[in-house]
Amino acid sequence: MVTDELKISSAEHKSRIEKIQKQLRRRRIGALYLTNSTRILYTTGFAHISTERPLAAVIPSEKPPFFMAPHLEYDHIRQECQLADDVLTYPDYPGKIHPMRLFAKFMAQKGLASSKIATDTMEGAAGGYGYRGPALRDLMRRVTFIDGRDVVDKLRLIKSKQEIRLLRESAKWSEMAHDILLENTRAGLHDTLIAVKSSYDSLARMLRKLGQSYVQLKIALSPVVVGFRGQVGTNSAIPHAVYTKNKIRRGDVLVTEAGVEMGGYTSELERTVVVGKPSSRARRCFEVMLSAQNAALKEFRPGIPCSRIDEATSKSMEDSGLIDGHRHHTGHGIGLDGHEPPWLDPGDRTLIREGMVFSCEPGVYIPGYAGFRHSDTVVITKKGMDFVTHYPRELEELTL
Amino acid sequence: MVTDELKISSAEHKSRIEKIQKQLRRRRIGALYLTNSTRILYTTGFAHISTERPLAAVIPSEKPPFFMAPHLEYDHIRQECQLADDVLTYPDYPGKIHPMRLFAKFMAQKGLASSKIATDTMEGAAGGYGYRGPALRDLMRRVTFIDGRDVVDKLRLIKSKQEIRLLRESAKWSEMAHDILLENTRAGLHDTLIAVKSSYDSLARMLRKLGQSYVQLKIALSPVVVGFRGQVGTNSAIPHAVYTKNKIRRGDVLVTEAGVEMGGYTSELERTVVVGKPSSRARRCFEVMLSAQNAALKEFRPGIPCSRIDEATSKSMEDSGLIDGHRHHTGHGIGLDGHEPPWLDPGDRTLIREGMVFSCEPGVYIPGYAGFRHSDTVVITKKGMDFVTHYPRELEELTL
Repeated sequence: MVTDELKISSAEHKSRIEKIQKQLRRRRIGALYLTNSTRILYTTGFAHISTERPLAAVIPSEKPPFFMAPHLEYDHIRQECQLADDVLTYPDYPGKIHPMRLFAKFMAQKGLASSKIATDTMEGAAGGYGYRGPALRDLMRRVTFIDGRDVVDKLRLIKSKQEIRLLRESAKWSEMAHDILLENTRAGLHDTLIAVKSSYDSLARMLRKLGQSYVQLKIALSPVVVGFRGQVGTNSAIPHAVYTKNKIRRGDVLVTEAGVEMGGYTSELERTVVVGKPSSRARRCFEVMLSAQNAALKEFRPGIPCSRIDEATSKSMEDSGLIDGHRHHTGHGIGLDGHEPPWLDPGDRTLIREGMVFSCEPGVYIPGYAGFRHSDTVVITKKGMDFVTHYPRELEELTL
Repeated sequence: MVTDELKISSAEHKSRIEKIQKQLRRRRIGALYLTNSTRILYTTGFAHISTERPLAAVIPSEKPPFFMAPHLEYDHIRQECQLADDVLTYPDYPGKIHPMRLFAKFMAQKGLASSKIATDTMEGAAGGYGYRGPALRDLMRRVTFIDGRDVVDKLRLIKSKQEIRLLRESAKWSEMAHDILLENTRAGLHDTLIAVKSSYDSLARMLRKLGQSYVQLKIALSPVVVGFRGQVGTNSAIPHAVYTKNKIRRGDVLVTEAGVEMGGYTSELERTVVVGKPSSRARRCFEVMLSAQNAALKEFRPGIPCSRIDEATSKSMEDSGLIDGHRHHTGHGIGLDGHEPPWLDPGDRTLIREGMVFSCEPGVYIPGYAGFRHSDTVVITKKGMDFVTHYPRELEELTL
């Protein structure tokens, strides 16, 4: 079932909560206590800005979910989250009475003072910024707290039809945004300016088409992000570059990124682009990277361990004699978070299953020269995989 | 001492590390182990994207700092952080051998296998995304780990001259960006489009003036963020709104935000703006908010507890008969993080000191109608306070 809006339906959120409650009952756990904003969004559909102020969504095994939150989030939760049965608030943080002491009291009021409780933090709070406080565990001595992160995270491993639809919709607009990025990219320009301009142009086009059906759930200046993140020229050899001070020059190798948030989900599309005629060295590195990506793409199918994909890329890079350019594994799961388990890594033996979604992004990096990486998002099908992102991958098509 | 670049000088980073080492020696602590990206940036100047991959900066009490990091950050740290004496890496996460086991080994190699170690996490990793792993504490049984968050965070309470200079520089460009936002805001337009367009226009103007002296240290599409964050019309009554689907209409109350990252530091400037002639209800709420802000601004001076500022705003709102519109305390410290201690809250008795920097932002919120909040950044001086942000605060100047 699909709603008119481009986000997960409340029916699906209800069904996620029911699955969680069923598990809690089976394991004789009284409630699931969540503080992580992604897990709260996944289970309840409520998107919020996580700060020093504690906020928790609690899912009792037999009763509807309730929230404990700062006063400033009361109207917000009431407006945005129909699934919340109750919202218990404290004035603010740190408060005359610390919020965690009130949370312990609220939990007791809800009949959870001596249960077994699964939680994603023993502290009771996400603990952002300068948060300090007593651990909820220490304030509720009769409760047995157990690690509950996997109660939610295991559900997130396999994407539902709605999730895959949102990731595909994200990819569709990311491809458009990437076209606009390439149209706007020229030697002599500042990479950040090209990025913000292209994000604006793409967002304007997307909103003209999608209108009221589009909803941005995550805090960000723009739900469309397309650019280079500093991966320009020699700085493209830094996989997690944050910025560059160099304007784009002829001959530069660039690594792009394009992502559009769609109901909280963002696909990953990255391309290696060369400004002007590629040198023979650039050609060679590009081909090594592309062969490694192809080697991975051929492997994807249900039933094999994640590590197998990474072995394919490493072998491909070794065969090509450029294993020295290896800096990271092949990819990661992707969904509400930009990186999610499982990992396409030699150390992850998780079996790949239908409905998992991965980034596929082996890279080749030559310090002082350049870096080469494409990233595509793929979804695992019954017999293999299907591209979520559709975009040219050959050097001829990526030369400006 | 000020560098040519708009960021903290390496001399200041050295001096911060020396202060930390002095404290470690006095307290007979062998090393400080940091995983939080803001604390690492504050102490070493190294800015990175925190993910599931563990990364730690370690400051031994008697030796220069070293890093433990994923292979993909090796070249990055070497390029960006002259203070790092050594960079010990693991291939990737989760790896055939878990990175935390290698971290324990590296720590032993560095002679820290049986010290007292102060840390900002007992886990040994920041733990983003789907990170899982054994706690470093459990892998190093001969080490006594103690909470070391305040070793860094106490230093951050009082801003240095360089920090205040960066916050003032941030404010200067935020004011310019806010002008551009108001020029671009009109009924009929989508708030997000106005925001991205205005951020682009402001960034272009700033980069033309600052050129190579500007360095963006934090990952973001744009280091200039100006817009509304969903606080449009009735949605302005939600203090932490994330988005709105409504285009701007005549009569709407808007709450803006403008911030420019400058060497990692961002000042806070927010204004309540009315589109078209304000109604008498809007006028009244605006005046209540402004009086509350004025009441706070008059109080700021060294030697009084933070709670005193909040008492002044609450009293002002009570006197005006609109205390029902109260949703949050008066403000927070601000620096490398958007929110930092201390808090302008009834529960924070921290004494205000010269060099502290605060947001001052009491708000009035009427659910279903609108919200009213200005935020200014102020620095505490010898005898009172000084505005960091300079921007009109009267309704006449904020009516479009």
